[in-house]
Amino acid sequence: MTYPPAAGERIDMTGVREQVDAVLEEFLASKAREAAECGHPPEVVPVVRDFLAAGGKRIRPVLCVVGWHAAGGRGERHAILRVAASLELFVTFALIHDDIMDDSATRRSRPTVHRLLAKRYADHRRPERMGADAALLAGNLALIWSRELLHSAGLDADRARAVHAVDDTLQAEVMFGQYRDLLGGDRFDEDVEAALAIVRYKTAGGTVQRPLQLGAAVAGAGPDLANVFTALGLPLGEAFQLRDDLLGVFGRPDSTGKPNLDDLREGKRTVLLALALRRADAEQQATLRALVGRADLDEGDARRIRVVLETTGARRGVEDMITARYRRALRVLDEAAFAPAPDAALRELALAATAREV
Amino acid sequence: MTYPPAAGERIDMTGVREQVDAVLEEFLASKAREAAECGHPPEVVPVVRDFLAAGGKRIRPVLCVVGWHAAGGRGERHAILRVAASLELFVTFALIHDDIMDDSATRRSRPTVHRLLAKRYADHRRPERMGADAALLAGNLALIWSRELLHSAGLDADRARAVHAVDDTLQAEVMFGQYRDLLGGDRFDEDVEAALAIVRYKTAGGTVQRPLQLGAAVAGAGPDLANVFTALGLPLGEAFQLRDDLLGVFGRPDSTGKPNLDDLREGKRTVLLALALRRADAEQQATLRALVGRADLDEGDARRIRVVLETTGARRGVEDMITARYRRALRVLDEAAFAPAPDAALRELALAATAREV
Repeated sequence: MTYPPAAGERIDMTGVREQVDAVLEEFLASKAREAAECGHPPEVVPVVRDFLAAGGKRIRPVLCVVGWHAAGGRGERHAILRVAASLELFVTFALIHDDIMDDSATRRSRPTVHRLLAKRYADHRRPERMGADAALLAGNLALIWSRELLHSAGLDADRARAVHAVDDTLQAEVMFGQYRDLLGGDRFDEDVEAALAIVRYKTAGGTVQRPLQLGAAVAGAGPDLANVFTALGLPLGEAFQLRDDLLGVFGRPDSTGKPNLDDLREGKRTVLLALALRRADAEQQATLRALVGRADLDEGDARRIRVVLETTGARRGVEDMITARYRRALRVLDEAAFAPAPDAALRELALAATAREV
Repeated sequence: MTYPPAAGERIDMTGVREQVDAVLEEFLASKAREAAECGHPPEVVPVVRDFLAAGGKRIRPVLCVVGWHAAGGRGERHAILRVAASLELFVTFALIHDDIMDDSATRRSRPTVHRLLAKRYADHRRPERMGADAALLAGNLALIWSRELLHSAGLDADRARAVHAVDDTLQAEVMFGQYRDLLGGDRFDEDVEAALAIVRYKTAGGTVQRPLQLGAAVAGAGPDLANVFTALGLPLGEAFQLRDDLLGVFGRPDSTGKPNLDDLREGKRTVLLALALRRADAEQQATLRALVGRADLDEGDARRIRVVLETTGARRGVEDMITARYRRALRVLDEAAFAPAPDAALRELALAATAREV
């Protein structure tokens, strides 16, 4: 297929995923060679590579490439693919650190990086501490490498400046979002707005809005399109996270790759729980307060919580919020009137991000 | 004073430090404004700003600017000052994370960032965990911001590419150095070479060699000068760290700002200790093995260790290694024949880095 796709053609998103993965594989293979030459510990690069290989939907890189198409990007795809791939390495960094902070045991149906490394250093004095510290550094390297991918994309000075402006903003926003999450993390209350603010910063910008803007910046687009992508990306990003929160409680681990008790054990401050607390009667409130956040919460407890989430209408409420955001995004797309191929891709991605299977 | 300094003039290194600090202050003030506009937690930017304000010799930024002069850099100093300042934010990131991993209580005569934040969140469920996690994120932001400073330096595409190539290498090397440190951290043995390898990666490149190369890249210098700066920077960087190790045991806390028991309590794998173990008789070995690495090590224990370090000749041996490296650096300078002003500055910095006061 040629780029940009002719009218009636579709953007081959599976192809984009494969090309992004090829960029990541080649880049990390070069990092492994460098590490071997320098005699660096051999496990670091494979830990990052295996994390990437274990899954992930590459939603941000795909959005980045689609944003590039929507902005009229055409011709040589070396630069846009490297920029897109750099987003996935950034996500890798953020998730490795997130898993350390939450002390999560599994991600993508595999042990988390700090757990894998703790196992590797089982004979050390303090293997768990060692695993967390080593994972912290491996995460830092993923961040540093994500920037190296961007720096070696071959952009001219103007585009590089525009791309970095978006990327630097994206990265700082995600960190502030994680920070807010941390602060709000052990406050479990009915403040739906506070829970939404965490979503907005931790996920919404970094998942949809900024990746689209990043692709547009590679194509040399101006501020008007950046604004359209804000209007499109924030509701979609929120919907994506709201869906994720539902999956974190109602999802089937064999299909999501994520345990469905962790969010409840952590007492993760989600819109779903805030909404349930707001609507709960005294007995339902007592159930939630007694069970959510218990480290030893079991499947029976989770079932009782799920019943409250259903009967208070919180689950339905979150579904409605997702639908409202999906519709808002479609209206933005209607108005923006992108070329047929990126328009179709954006509609498909909007649907996929908001209507994911349980 | 004009730039570049005329023959006989000196580079005003105090002035460079002040200008770098002014760049950092202005940059962080803009970050504080952005954070306030977004309603982000207000403590994050001040935590980073206060860490910078509490001290640090700005040795890397100064070397970066001197490297620029040595490479013939002249005229507008906006770009070189931003690049130099970005190094200090990178160091801030690395030290904040290092202090989390070592769980150090103080740095620069103040509580470390994770301890400060733990105190701030004393009423949370797990304040220490909270402090470490918040400091982790503040450190990540310092890294992200260090890159933003670089990205906004206004370099053309060729220089940006050269500068990023050095900077990406520097950052990854420091992370691998910390990783090696971690792995070797609780092995306390007489392997002087292994201890030196940690020094080489963790400190030597990132402290002298790469900052000089970074400045040279801003000035558009080629690979020949990069090689000279490797030949100059590695021995000086090693000498700098060897001096630091001596200060960590023999230094006066009121002048170094660092406690002088921490390295011994940690059992930090230094060349100094490896050398002492190698040269110690059975009784001295027993003393070192019994005391080094004890979390409850007191001033009396430290005195007994210091006696062993003196009588085995380990302290003298490390002094000799420092002197040998200092001389090697001077020979490189003799051959390189830089212009008088950068030459004088490099000699002054070489002396300052290796002969720091106890």
